[in-house]
Amino acid sequence: MNQTTPPGANKVDLRTVRSHPDYWYPVAWSRELKPGKTIGTRFAGTPIALVRPDEGPVFALEDRCAHRQVPLSKGVVSGASVKCCYHGWAYGRSGRCIDVPYLGKGKLPNGVRTFPCREQDGMIFVFPGDPEKAETTLLPPALARASDPGYKTRYFGRQVGCHYSFMHENLMDMNHQFMHSKQMGQMKPRFLGQKKEATMVEASYSFARTGGKQPIGEALIFGERRDSSEQFQHRDVMTIRTEYPYQTLRIQTGDEDPVMDLWIVYVPQSADELTNRTFGLLSVKRPKIPGLLDMAWPFLIAFTERIFAEDREIVEMEQQAWRELGGDHNQEVFPVINALRALLAECGLPPAPASAPSVTAQVAAPAPAPDA
Amino acid sequence: MNQTTPPGANKVDLRTVRSHPDYWYPVAWSRELKPGKTIGTRFAGTPIALVRPDEGPVFALEDRCAHRQVPLSKGVVSGASVKCCYHGWAYGRSGRCIDVPYLGKGKLPNGVRTFPCREQDGMIFVFPGDPEKAETTLLPPALARASDPGYKTRYFGRQVGCHYSFMHENLMDMNHQFMHSKQMGQMKPRFLGQKKEATMVEASYSFARTGGKQPIGEALIFGERRDSSEQFQHRDVMTIRTEYPYQTLRIQTGDEDPVMDLWIVYVPQSADELTNRTFGLLSVKRPKIPGLLDMAWPFLIAFTERIFAEDREIVEMEQQAWRELGGDHNQEVFPVINALRALLAECGLPPAPASAPSVTAQVAAPAPAPDA
Amino acid sequence: MNQTTPPGANKVDLRTVRSHPDYWYPVAWSRELKPGKTIGTRFAGTPIALVRPDEGPVFALEDRCAHRQVPLSKGVVSGASVKCCYHGWAYGRSGRCIDVPYLGKGKLPNGVRTFPCREQDGMIFVFPGDPEKAETTLLPPALARASDPGYKTRYFGRQVGCHYSFMHENLMDMNHQFMHSKQMGQMKPRFLGQKKEATMVEASYSFARTGGKQPIGEALIFGERRDSSEQFQHRDVMTIRTEYPYQTLRIQTGDEDPVMDLWIVYVPQSADELTNRTFGLLSVKRPKIPGLLDMAWPFLIAFTERIFAEDREIVEMEQQAWRELGGDHNQEVFPVINALRALLAECGLPPAPASAPSVTAQVAAPAPAPDA
Repeated sequence: MNQTTPPGANKVDLRTVRSHPDYWYPVAWSRELKPGKTIGTRFAGTPIALVRPDEGPVFALEDRCAHRQVPLSKGVVSGASVKCCYHGWAYGRSGRCIDVPYLGKGKLPNGVRTFPCREQDGMIFVFPGDPEKAETTLLPPALARASDPGYKTRYFGRQVGCHYSFMHENLMDMNHQFMHSKQMGQMKPRFLGQKKEATMVEASYSFARTGGKQPIGEALIFGERRDSSEQFQHRDVMTIRTEYPYQTLRIQTGDEDPVMDLWIVYVPQSADELTNRTFGLLSVKRPKIPGLLDMAWPFLIAFTERIFAEDREIVEMEQQAWRELGGDHNQEVFPVINALRALLAECGLPPAPASAPSVTAQVAAPAPAPDA
Repeated sequence: MNQTTPPGANKVDLRTVRSHPDYWYPVAWSRELKPGKTIGTRFAGTPIALVRPDEGPVFALEDRCAHRQVPLSKGVVSGASVKCCYHGWAYGRSGRCIDVPYLGKGKLPNGVRTFPCREQDGMIFVFPGDPEKAETTLLPPALARASDPGYKTRYFGRQVGCHYSFMHENLMDMNHQFMHSKQMGQMKPRFLGQKKEATMVEASYSFARTGGKQPIGEALIFGERRDSSEQFQHRDVMTIRTEYPYQTLRIQTGDEDPVMDLWIVYVPQSADELTNRTFGLLSVKRPKIPGLLDMAWPFLIAFTERIFAEDREIVEMEQQAWRELGGDHNQEVFPVINALRALLAECGLPPAPASAPSVTAQVAAPAPAPDA
Repeated sequence: MNQTTPPGANKVDLRTVRSHPDYWYPVAWSRELKPGKTIGTRFAGTPIALVRPDEGPVFALEDRCAHRQVPLSKGVVSGASVKCCYHGWAYGRSGRCIDVPYLGKGKLPNGVRTFPCREQDGMIFVFPGDPEKAETTLLPPALARASDPGYKTRYFGRQVGCHYSFMHENLMDMNHQFMHSKQMGQMKPRFLGQKKEATMVEASYSFARTGGKQPIGEALIFGERRDSSEQFQHRDVMTIRTEYPYQTLRIQTGDEDPVMDLWIVYVPQSADELTNRTFGLLSVKRPKIPGLLDMAWPFLIAFTERIFAEDREIVEMEQQAWRELGGDHNQEVFPVINALRALLAECGLPPAPASAPSVTAQVAAPAPAPDA
């Protein structure tokens, strides 16, 4: 073996590293949660009930009634509280239990854990870690170009059956264009270089088409700017960045605005973090002809769906191999991917000790009066 | 926490307590087993073959051939014996092996375990514990009002994916009427008191309708006795009793015969007892107009099915939370439920040590002659 | 217990004994693998990619790319090599990595394990054990009568959810004709005797029809040779032999050529070897009337399918009982089956220690130049 994974990256099995909870993670699309309703979501095995009262912002509670642990998200929103569907215990925004229909107010039991919660760019975020850090931990003011009228943005996502690290590596290693050659034609990537900072790794590429026909989805992004023969002949630069825990991919020429700007994050679902739910915002610059992009949008959706389906299949096969082999046997030869792997190992949490999870941490104290 | 689970009840996790085997448990409906046939059932992971010869009573054998452990219930009933489907080994009522087609009679191998077995009120019961206690362990002479012509009885049951203790708690805690308000309208229960004996806990309630329309299924039970505005205004008393391991629910006014009488038991299926099969007899007093109850019976069935479906969904969510949390985190505030939990813990068996089950206990000795 | 399993056979649980890898095992039918294609198969949990170049014989590689462990069988055959579908790493017949599109030739990483591979009688065989023993380990020159024009041969197989030892025992214990009496009528076997050698056990039987009608599938095999009343009246001899790891069943009268000749093997699929894929060649002697056997072939297929379906159901029930009981409780009374069990225990490998499998053994060294 000539080039290999650096020693430091192998101290722990990367696929057992847990997402660091002291960040904002999207757990639902805003449109999934109607006023006066509650839905259940997950972060790394922790069930979370999102509640949107008829008035006021969304709030997030641990999705287990303090009484018998059934999901509060199966309950009923009433004013600014949510009542458990089983025996009607009610909880307010603070997580305190504010009513048990058959108990006096002086005897109210403990409540449930609450999570800092906010909405931005069409997503509902929670902060699963130390609540005191939520205020000072910032999201970029805009994700992708969702709020820029010069762009049209696609919101996409789905469940993928693998550890989030496979997703980061998949996107950053553009040599995997080999896999998409049926969709994209043969594109030869040229690696331009990498950057590394404390919580960031970045890779840049240019591309040359060496065979195959340009797909319509791709033409939508680049079509009007130049003649087809020159397309992608190492003029556009693709920059992929993992800024922990998020990832972005931008395509641009020189200092122009990017023609494409992707923001994406892979939110762990099960406690072992071997499944994730992907939330992605894909912004495409509108061409000069008005309405062209909207007309062609279904083609772009179909194109990106096919690409994403191929990526999902391969990362799930990687995860399956990991399960069968009982660990990580990657033999990485590409330095930027090794840098990325080291970053993900450093920024995450070490594997959980093999014991039952605790639900008792950070539970709100009993409430002598309702907080609704 | 002001009211809490008493210390004694928490010595073991209630959801790991096993059903005490020294009781009669139904394992099939009588109508499931035709003459000359055999069917397979379960008690707490132990497979049981029920055999109904063309003549004579049903008998119950361990449902594994002594030879290669395949189910005897896949076999053929022949006279008073059952032959394994694979190589034709034959077993009689005593469990002894009475024939191996290719072996001399003097060389017959050991047989299989047998269980005391009886039929009553449309169910086939077995006694999975110490056979010597079977004779002296009594079932009530009539279950619900199955043999009373003044009542019509519904036989119902199904698999539920939870420990039997959740079922007992669900039925006894009438504060969960909150969950059935779509089916029943808003019914406010008033707790009247509890009784406790060595193997019995009982809770009594009255109810007041505080909103919603009386459902037709309920009207069937109460309709003719009074005007609707008074219905359930704390005149009827509902008594729920766990008389280990069975449970009953009766509704009556004063000393009259109950308008409804339910007998129900939750028979563990898997060895971990985290699934159960419910056998219930629901007897409804016939109103004075002949035929009215029969005509309306389909409505009553549909109504009780909806109620039961809601109960099943919630107890299975409780069980799922228990699995995810790795144990019992109930925070019970209702004293009668804590009394019930203590009773179930005391009357059951402690959790099984983590080892392979033994199939060799209580096997009948070799038989020099057939017992058919 | 009068007759019992001999002491030696019980030192290990037979159902945990592993198939000895130093034999040739079929892993696919030849027709499954077209030129220029690759397919994925398994032997005892080890994934194997079979590659058929446009020219030259089939070769077999471990079905995990050295890079990220995804299946090479999802890749593309190019000349005499196979390229991984993900990043295009290429491997030749030797298993060496001969190209990484984005790496210099001097920097090529390690390759993957390779397996000796050959084709015979319509099957692709691999040798999963010590490659040095492959050359000197022989298959019979013809399996069943696949290459004899006097016979017509059926190729059949499927997945069965049990340890291979159940399959051997099922076929050799002809007392299980009891189970097939619906398909075959009542056939009473007479045990004629057994032979045992170091890697072989053989049992012989004759049969007498004691009831039921002769099935058409059976008539096809015997029909023209004698009048129906005498059929199977202890004139034909059935010989079943386990010649580790294969099994054969022949039916013949005196020194005549057999009327039926079956060759069958049960290839472990999962790492625990509790599933197998059966490969069987069933040769039937052609009757004197030309074309009769071909015409009647669909009946013979349907007949053997029904027999095999019954066998599969029963052995999967045996396996299920083994799982539930946590081990082997067989109480074998038939000496030849105990001899067979001892043989299978002696010829196989002891149970694997409970640890993660190693993928690093026998990996080809880095290749400075392509071997294509």
